[in-house]
Amino acid sequence: MFQEIFENVRRNHPLIHNITNYVTSNDCANILLACGASPIMADDAAEVAEITQICSGLTLNIGTLNSRTVSSMLLAGKQANLLGHPVVLDPVGAGASRLRSDTALHLLEELQFAVIRGNLSEMKALATGCCATRGVDADLSDRITEENLEEVLAFARAFSNKTGAVIAITGKIDLVADSVDGYCIFNGHPMMSSVTGTGCQLSALTAAFVAANPGRTLEAAAAAVCAMGYAGELAHARLSPLDGNASYRNYIIDAVYKMTAEMLEKGANYEIRSARAASLRSNRQSLGRQAGPV
Amino acid sequence: MFQEIFENVRRNHPLIHNITNYVTSNDCANILLACGASPIMADDAAEVAEITQICSGLTLNIGTLNSRTVSSMLLAGKQANLLGHPVVLDPVGAGASRLRSDTALHLLEELQFAVIRGNLSEMKALATGCCATRGVDADLSDRITEENLEEVLAFARAFSNKTGAVIAITGKIDLVADSVDGYCIFNGHPMMSSVTGTGCQLSALTAAFVAANPGRTLEAAAAAVCAMGYAGELAHARLSPLDGNASYRNYIIDAVYKMTAEMLEKGANYEIRSARAASLRSNRQSLGRQAGPV
Amino acid sequence: MFQEIFENVRRNHPLIHNITNYVTSNDCANILLACGASPIMADDAAEVAEITQICSGLTLNIGTLNSRTVSSMLLAGKQANLLGHPVVLDPVGAGASRLRSDTALHLLEELQFAVIRGNLSEMKALATGCCATRGVDADLSDRITEENLEEVLAFARAFSNKTGAVIAITGKIDLVADSVDGYCIFNGHPMMSSVTGTGCQLSALTAAFVAANPGRTLEAAAAAVCAMGYAGELAHARLSPLDGNASYRNYIIDAVYKMTAEMLEKGANYEIRSARAASLRSNRQSLGRQAGPV
Repeated sequence: MFQEIFENVRRNHPLIHNITNYVTSNDCANILLACGASPIMADDAAEVAEITQICSGLTLNIGTLNSRTVSSMLLAGKQANLLGHPVVLDPVGAGASRLRSDTALHLLEELQFAVIRGNLSEMKALATGCCATRGVDADLSDRITEENLEEVLAFARAFSNKTGAVIAITGKIDLVADSVDGYCIFNGHPMMSSVTGTGCQLSALTAAFVAANPGRTLEAAAAAVCAMGYAGELAHARLSPLDGNASYRNYIIDAVYKMTAEMLEKGANYEIRSARAASLRSNRQSLGRQAGPV
Repeated sequence: MFQEIFENVRRNHPLIHNITNYVTSNDCANILLACGASPIMADDAAEVAEITQICSGLTLNIGTLNSRTVSSMLLAGKQANLLGHPVVLDPVGAGASRLRSDTALHLLEELQFAVIRGNLSEMKALATGCCATRGVDADLSDRITEENLEEVLAFARAFSNKTGAVIAITGKIDLVADSVDGYCIFNGHPMMSSVTGTGCQLSALTAAFVAANPGRTLEAAAAAVCAMGYAGELAHARLSPLDGNASYRNYIIDAVYKMTAEMLEKGANYEIRSARAASLRSNRQSLGRQAGPV
Repeated sequence: MFQEIFENVRRNHPLIHNITNYVTSNDCANILLACGASPIMADDAAEVAEITQICSGLTLNIGTLNSRTVSSMLLAGKQANLLGHPVVLDPVGAGASRLRSDTALHLLEELQFAVIRGNLSEMKALATGCCATRGVDADLSDRITEENLEEVLAFARAFSNKTGAVIAITGKIDLVADSVDGYCIFNGHPMMSSVTGTGCQLSALTAAFVAANPGRTLEAAAAAVCAMGYAGELAHARLSPLDGNASYRNYIIDAVYKMTAEMLEKGANYEIRSARAASLRSNRQSLGRQAGPV
């Protein structure tokens, strides 16, 4: 299934508009190119609606947010909603400051998002409208584990129901859910948290996957999350003894560039859990690190 | 000829002022260091004129343009014009929004540029004052090929005549022309379009080459374009099976760092076509990919 | 001594708030992650005080300064001072424009810094309130050598006495001094000046080292400077014939990521000179390049 979704990205090479932070914008642009999409970064209120118009997807990322870009996000988002283009929200650091929380909540009120992607701390801050987080990384208490998987999945379904968006919560295990079905994704490597912006990159990637696959938002978002995590695994396997997080950063983007749709189909490691019944389907890999009760 | 031009860059190590976008500014700084120049990025209206004063060249790049930096570009540009420092314009995404087109046209009216460097879509938008482009990449219909080379060259000469600037149009084949002579440059590799900011980097590099070679703008701009394209070739030859666009990005800058003036002299792959007569001179390489009627 | 200091960084993984330029912010974030700290970049006046509150250290870097962020720096700095969090100032390009000099001097008046880190040109501009510098790099006349070491050390002690901050002046030799004691640090490699932002990265690293070692600001800042320089040496040893400054940039961050506290203890190459007596202690390595009268 993910093979076709990835093929659509490479075939359609969607142009993605990113209103995003300056820390990771270069990596976001390069990972979009790596997957077969094209990036454009534009954040001035005077041009964002026009830029969105020539694109097929939009990412709103609130890292290094400033008062100038908040209105740009609203303008671009409304234009994208009008045109039916998917909009992805990355609520970087929501909960860490009133500006970020309020902005994220305001965007949620004003815009219809296709996907909201963040860590569990950020998602809780959005869902409850409160709670300080530890900056841009998830609190330790907010790790997703086999133990709290069902609980977090229930939270994601409820949040999806409330917002109408697919909810992608990333962490040790990633969850991608709508109000009914949820993908539990076991791809990825812990070292990815030593590279700044892997979350931002994933949000951009998600916009590309969703834009290239109209009407299949849930599957496309899950495919993007699998692709990013799998790239993290492939990149980790490639590390030489002197390589640290800077080389790892490059190797992750390289891995997306070199990944074929067939590779993703085989490397994706997930299971689908439905609120309607028991596990619908599993593509779970029995790799050492990830072995466990399925 | 290019040997001496590159030696002047390494000998004079010009300080280049860049008012540029935040997506690729780090790469622009590193490629300037790689070629032997020094970068300084400063975009606040309160300091740009002073900063330009201690530099010997200026790059104005309208990617991630905002209303605050437009006035900074004018201030810096006027100061540079006053001092006789070369100014390079990179009209990133001109044609993609009114803000970018209008700003680029306004800069063209108010400032004298030494070089304008962009892809064919951006250049057409500037020359005609219209036409939407596909974001920051050239339209497919705007590829420069052996077939439309003379036509694009005539366009470049006319645009140079109109602006008084050397026109550098980059694509599959690159053209660098003033109102009379034109360099057709065959260096480069298609994979360079998979790395964000290779155009921005080239514009910064061009400012360094031109600043270090007063009175030789056309040759210096052509040398910079050859150097960038040749770096792309060298970097591509170095790719290992797992390397993608992120490693390629690093290798391109590495290749500029390791490139000697002698290497550029030999690796430059171009021919000069004059409006006055037939081909003046050819340094065209007979490499497989680039073979063809000269 | 440095072993314990570095262990404290890895154990406490301090969250560092950075108000910094957009050119090198990605590298600053990744080097913070490499040393075991966490980064957060936030520069809007509406959130900086709150962000500083959840952090344990703050870096103020005036590269790509703009009028919007100056007030943010003051707000964040005052909050950090109130909470007793260490604040590091990186006066990038002080002396190159009135905006940068005035801002740096204003910050010095309003805030108490734990550490001020810059090159000798920038430090002189701050100490004297005057003098144009060559952009963001030190003037040639401002190199620290064995010959002017005592003179620069006396300058650093006086500047520390005036500001109450530890003074870190980096160059061919690095000096880290309070009003009494001074570390002369011989780590580093000349090629580091070919990578943009190694100074910015060091300032961020210094904030992490100081934040994780309360009450030991001088030693922690010296350890950070040794760690950065030593990473530059390790990274240089790793260069292959085709590697240039872009690969070197990655290898430096990699080297911090792979550096153990024991490695730093052994690799740190410095001597301590006190104003009270003769050289207190030496950890100076007798490597070829660095041999000389101790």
